[in-house]
Amino acid sequence: MFRENNAGVTFAKGFTAAGVKAGIKKSGKADIAVIYTEKAAVVAGTFTQNAVAAAPVHVSKAVVKSGTAFAIVANAGCANACTGQQGMDDANQMAAITAQELGVKPDDVIVASTGVIGVNLPMDKMEPGIKAAVKELNANGSVAAGNAIITTDTKSKACSLEIEISGKKVRLGAIAKGSGMIQPNMATMLCFITTDVAINQKLLQKALSEVVETSFNMISVDGDMSTNDMVVVMANGMAANVAITTENDDYKIFCDALDKICTGISQEIAKDGEGATKFLTIKVTGSPSFADAKTVAMSVAKSPLVKTAFFGQDANWGRVICAVGYAGVQMIPEQTVVKFGDITVFDKGMGAAFDQTALRDVMEAHDITISIDMGLGDEEATVWSCDLSYEYVKINGEYHT
Amino acid sequence: MFRENNAGVTFAKGFTAAGVKAGIKKSGKADIAVIYTEKAAVVAGTFTQNAVAAAPVHVSKAVVKSGTAFAIVANAGCANACTGQQGMDDANQMAAITAQELGVKPDDVIVASTGVIGVNLPMDKMEPGIKAAVKELNANGSVAAGNAIITTDTKSKACSLEIEISGKKVRLGAIAKGSGMIQPNMATMLCFITTDVAINQKLLQKALSEVVETSFNMISVDGDMSTNDMVVVMANGMAANVAITTENDDYKIFCDALDKICTGISQEIAKDGEGATKFLTIKVTGSPSFADAKTVAMSVAKSPLVKTAFFGQDANWGRVICAVGYAGVQMIPEQTVVKFGDITVFDKGMGAAFDQTALRDVMEAHDITISIDMGLGDEEATVWSCDLSYEYVKINGEYHT
Repeated sequence: MFRENNAGVTFAKGFTAAGVKAGIKKSGKADIAVIYTEKAAVVAGTFTQNAVAAAPVHVSKAVVKSGTAFAIVANAGCANACTGQQGMDDANQMAAITAQELGVKPDDVIVASTGVIGVNLPMDKMEPGIKAAVKELNANGSVAAGNAIITTDTKSKACSLEIEISGKKVRLGAIAKGSGMIQPNMATMLCFITTDVAINQKLLQKALSEVVETSFNMISVDGDMSTNDMVVVMANGMAANVAITTENDDYKIFCDALDKICTGISQEIAKDGEGATKFLTIKVTGSPSFADAKTVAMSVAKSPLVKTAFFGQDANWGRVICAVGYAGVQMIPEQTVVKFGDITVFDKGMGAAFDQTALRDVMEAHDITISIDMGLGDEEATVWSCDLSYEYVKINGEYHT
Repeated sequence: MFRENNAGVTFAKGFTAAGVKAGIKKSGKADIAVIYTEKAAVVAGTFTQNAVAAAPVHVSKAVVKSGTAFAIVANAGCANACTGQQGMDDANQMAAITAQELGVKPDDVIVASTGVIGVNLPMDKMEPGIKAAVKELNANGSVAAGNAIITTDTKSKACSLEIEISGKKVRLGAIAKGSGMIQPNMATMLCFITTDVAINQKLLQKALSEVVETSFNMISVDGDMSTNDMVVVMANGMAANVAITTENDDYKIFCDALDKICTGISQEIAKDGEGATKFLTIKVTGSPSFADAKTVAMSVAKSPLVKTAFFGQDANWGRVICAVGYAGVQMIPEQTVVKFGDITVFDKGMGAAFDQTALRDVMEAHDITISIDMGLGDEEATVWSCDLSYEYVKINGEYHT
């Protein structure tokens, strides 16, 4: 059963977590998180495709390549991006301090940072912060860890899920942050997933890479792709299921569970987009391919005119069909049908006659589904997004206000 | 000499124009424009690449294909897009009414519409409006015509230019509208250009198509591509220059003049972007190709995080380098240099040390140039854009306010 905002990364057996205040965030809120597994975990990850990848991304890629990990150390308030050799040294130092405190090796520690670009990490604050976090590691520490990685998020995103594999209870849990700078084609923002499933590293990476395509890569808040994003999963095998080493039924059960975790967290991120007042689900059907369907859905999700219309509760289907038309894939207006909720607003080349009152009810709801049937095939894709409000401008143009 | 907001489309010999109030705009302002040449003009055009092209786009493409035209009729307040067969009938009727009043053929009349999508033209208002506009055609009518095609623009865009070809004075002039739904890879918004140059249709089209690539296709306000956009140029030959029939020096002189007109008007459109408080010039140099340079510049121009930062006068170069990094073309942070105005803010992989006061002066100016040297080649591209303000959200989400 999928559960939101629950035990998170300490739900699976053998994992502990903590979050502490180290003085990195100007607000004084918690800003260093550590997640630890008592038994070595196989580890998989997907990372930002931004050419300007931050130092912690480089460090963590190497850890994933090594195949196993014992811990994740993360900070908010400083992205350690565009910081040159000093940034690499600092990221490695974060791993080294954490490793020493835990009695593991530095390349057993995943490193993540989020916050302002172009500023060096205050290592004088990082060191005591990491040490304090390790001391506070506990089996109920997921909420504290989740709160220590958020930035402009209004809340921490967390979830957990229990399934059964070869007669054994297997648990998965996750915490995530992400609100602005969110864009497809990548591992979006920070998400840490823990599980006690027994699985080999190759299949864990395969499962994650596939699931990310239909979850994290299907959300868009503002079309900006961060320099620091990563999704990391650690599997420590303590569920004692028959280890998954082939793509058998157990693998499929695990993939399905991982998908539920990632999709749920992705939707939470889109819902908590900077300044969001609406949660938009954009479902494109009748497409010749998943890629085409995704292109159309993203074109609609990223249109500032569509986003401001939904903020204004204005049923402006013209802006939606316009964004479909310029998406750059095959589109025949005379075969296209667009619905807001259950109400057809555009029907094969022309506006549809609809019940104004019923449509107003759809537009006034918080969750709105935009369905677009291309009439060209059998493939589909669903993207989750949000509206564009005054608050988004305020959050990101705050110097001015 | 290039002149802004001047004689516009009536600057060249033989052209008259008018703009009248027909009651199509809710505001009651002028909404029908007619431009006429007493001598048949060769005509060229570029049109929206949106798959959902409006009825007037289809009609006008056919006129351009015919090679010559006598007039342009345009209305604001209703886009006549997504209006099916009725829309095609109405667009053809606009041409027919105009042609009858002028004593020319319907396929001598370019038709353009801009405004709300999905609403049929009120032909009962269009017919008397067009007739009134034809009666008011005069040699000083460019301003009135310009005002009749604007929508959310704060002002009409117009310019004119006089050059000499084969010892003859040749004049060019233009009016344009465009403020929201502005996106590259197309003939952006409505722009009508008139000239008395003598040139054949093939070269006129070639000149326009080339110039559009580096002018209208290099601006971005919000990344949305309209269903109705067109740039049309009419050349009536009344300058009596030796007709341009090969790509000789005269052709180059004309292309250069057309480029000045189109670039000038494009910049005016970006400056008058919906809610704009800043005019941003994004110049990418050191690129392996024009296409790559343009991709990088557009990635920066379209980033909501970059746009809101400039609105807030926040010298947040991290958002700029982030948008460069996710543009999807080759980029090596250690070879990249970014300047705001004359001030280097990012220098080969890291933030640069800069004079905070001098940078503040740059950020507080209305016109700001962002220079990005990729360090990878000799090609370059320049894109013009604007910031993203509360006013943009207000204009496009006004239902809410």
